[in-house]
Amino acid sequence: MTTTSTYTVSGMTCGHCVQAVTQELTKLDGVDEVTIELDTGRVTVTSVAALDDAAVAAAVDEAGYEVVP
Amino acid sequence: MTTTSTYTVSGMTCGHCVQAVTQELTKLDGVDEVTIELDTGRVTVTSVAALDDAAVAAAVDEAGYEVVP
Repeated sequence: MTTTSTYTVSGMTCGHCVQAVTQELTKLDGVDEVTIELDTGRVTVTSVAALDDAAVAAAVDEAGYEVVP
Repeated sequence: MTTTSTYTVSGMTCGHCVQAVTQELTKLDGVDEVTIELDTGRVTVTSVAALDDAAVAAAVDEAGYEVVP
């Protein structure tokens, strides 16, 4: 089973930011693919099981950004 | 002798950009210190000899940004 979750992340301004967030999210257990649209801050995460939103928020925070609730 | 040169670099939007430019400029021969003000794009380079502006422009380009003439 594949789950797709979407989040909005604030504060990303350039490709480096996208890379930093992608890198942290990719480390999460079960994450398969991370797609980020810089303009809108829309982050789509594909995973093999449902994601823990708190873990996603923590990973984004680790990269230096914030999930918009 | 220490030389201080200032440039304006366009396109930097975040700390990652600053880091990328700093890293490329620090690789140049004789460069001692690089200080970047993100808001203004002002880049100050301290070096042990006069810098070659073309080499500076090439390093900034390498990082993915541009020196404003």
